[in-house]
Amino acid sequence: MKKEFCSTKGNIKFAGTHLIIELWNGKYLSSLPKLRKVLQEVVKICGATLLKIDLHKFSPSGGISGVAIIKESHISIHSWPEYEYAAIDIFVCGDIDPYKAIPVLEKRLESKNIQIVELKRGVFNVTEDKIIHKEK
Amino acid sequence: MKKEFCSTKGNIKFAGTHLIIELWNGKYLSSLPKLRKVLQEVVKICGATLLKIDLHKFSPSGGISGVAIIKESHISIHSWPEYEYAAIDIFVCGDIDPYKAIPVLEKRLESKNIQIVELKRGVFNVTEDKIIHKEK
Repeated sequence: MKKEFCSTKGNIKFAGTHLIIELWNGKYLSSLPKLRKVLQEVVKICGATLLKIDLHKFSPSGGISGVAIIKESHISIHSWPEYEYAAIDIFVCGDIDPYKAIPVLEKRLESKNIQIVELKRGVFNVTEDKIIHKEK
Repeated sequence: MKKEFCSTKGNIKFAGTHLIIELWNGKYLSSLPKLRKVLQEVVKICGATLLKIDLHKFSPSGGISGVAIIKESHISIHSWPEYEYAAIDIFVCGDIDPYKAIPVLEKRLESKNIQIVELKRGVFNVTEDKIIHKEK
């Protein structure tokens, strides 16, 4: 089978980059049209290819779960408006730069309190000498 | 607004538990019906409430992206069958135990090589003395 691992950085081969985003003091976190628009804008600015967006609103809190499935993996948001908090994940492969999403989130959700943790998913091969998972 | 933070553990209040699952040496990772069934079974065994499942298959690799939106957040899988690898996320709030999913993944995808990282999302209040994010 053709080997098409998605991302490389130096000698590191990996499947994708996953940003774990903690957003506090955010606004509009119970607005379906707003969060749909934010997801669309994030997909666009990252240069990803949108396959589907789904949003669901919960009562009585007004919290929203939204997932954009993109060709390069997914972007999700789960909001707790009663705490002005949203858990946002941006999982991408290939040449996509997920950090381009951050200014959009800051601006559209009016948050100045965003923390980010970056994970590499599916780390395959670190150096020529130290194989984590052998190529088949 | 009513305060309904989803999860507590001792003095820790937080929005949800997020398992980052790295699955290697897995089988059936290019089978849409298989991965749909796995997502359904994981939702069921965790006692979560399914809202929607979406799966997309990519060519030429045969990789699949699947997301189950649940009332308690989401479960996602992205597979790279050419490396027998899948990135799986289980993000839940409330009393759901996401670890119940692991034996299902092991059995159904025939993998004996699963690593798990657990994250708490939206950590709100650690002790009475040390407030991370103040209640409104």
